[in-house]
Amino acid sequence: MNFSSKLLENAVAEFAKLPGVGQKTALRLVLHLLNQDKQEVEQFSKTISKLRNEIQFCSICHNISDQSVCEICSSHKRDHSLICVVEDTRDVMAIENTNQYNGVYHVLGGLISPMDGIGPSDLQVDTLVERLKANETKEIIFALSATMEGDTTLFYLHKRVKNFNITISTIARGIAFGGELEYVDEITLGRSIATRVPYENSLTK
Amino acid sequence: MNFSSKLLENAVAEFAKLPGVGQKTALRLVLHLLNQDKQEVEQFSKTISKLRNEIQFCSICHNISDQSVCEICSSHKRDHSLICVVEDTRDVMAIENTNQYNGVYHVLGGLISPMDGIGPSDLQVDTLVERLKANETKEIIFALSATMEGDTTLFYLHKRVKNFNITISTIARGIAFGGELEYVDEITLGRSIATRVPYENSLTK
Ligand SMILES: [Zn+2]
Ligand SMILES: [Zn+2]
Repeated sequence: MNFSSKLLENAVAEFAKLPGVGQKTALRLVLHLLNQDKQEVEQFSKTISKLRNEIQFCSICHNISDQSVCEICSSHKRDHSLICVVEDTRDVMAIENTNQYNGVYHVLGGLISPMDGIGPSDLQVDTLVERLKANETKEIIFALSATMEGDTTLFYLHKRVKNFNITISTIARGIAFGGELEYVDEITLGRSIATRVPYENSLTK
Repeated sequence: MNFSSKLLENAVAEFAKLPGVGQKTALRLVLHLLNQDKQEVEQFSKTISKLRNEIQFCSICHNISDQSVCEICSSHKRDHSLICVVEDTRDVMAIENTNQYNGVYHVLGGLISPMDGIGPSDLQVDTLVERLKANETKEIIFALSATMEGDTTLFYLHKRVKNFNITISTIARGIAFGGELEYVDEITLGRSIATRVPYENSLTK
């Protein structure tokens, strides 16, 4: 593209770094911002910067949080003996939306993916094992996407936790095979938590 | 959505204000930024803010520019007696890409659209008339989208400029009807400039 302005070109280049945003879309978004009041664009810019600089991750479950311990982990109304293991904050949001789960979470921060160079040490696995050592957990539910990465992660995590004296479950595969958790409708997701099965029963064949 | 963090919620709300960006997409983009280095996110944020605060519009053609007069308007290699009137900077970029045009531009900053409350006074129309009064223009080419807004604008502009002693052309409608200029391929666009027709011949019936 022949930009008439370096400032414009730089802004388009920044937007085009975002996933799924091509040059044309980036240009459209930037021109939209140019049409807004300076004050609004400043707010856009500041909100992003503030998020990245001030965001915290719960020291217990590692979910995105504004405090050092998140609201769920600090709530006395939740069942702290039940831990649901998920990939990221979108999955926590999706499960909370079902209103069918009263335990706590453990956010891995990703899934094992050799293709993307993501191994167990990039995820919050050791901290999960530490939580189990505290002996307060009765059951752990794996709520991972029904994808190859999800299954690989599930397989690895099961090896790491199977020797603890706890019930290990996975959410029922009401989820369409290959489906990503965050896109599952609330009824299916809620039901698949209610009808969760022991890990051993979840393995295909 | 149940956000676990107000900072996260605010950032998603800002992204969701962008055209064509829903809540789920906004969340995906924000989580992407959270995974980047602080420095990179700071650069993203600063580049947007800088763009909005420092951008200039050429005092002659009103195209986005880093100087008070843009490179095209200040070039001695361009034919300043030939003015191509376009909606916005994307159209200038598209026409420059064809390498078939050597005149200068006039960027309206939009099209007349009663539905969106955009009238002639919101556009750079008076400044176009002023340019023609300077008596240096031999030909004016209207290169507007073949949409209802484009046609309405063309009709209005023609009324405003028809009494000047200049040739008035529109780009040939090689453009598919209803098509937006910025999505036209370079060959079609280049050819439609080369085979431009007098305004009177361009009217349907
Ligand atoms: Zn927590
Ligand atoms: Zn100019």
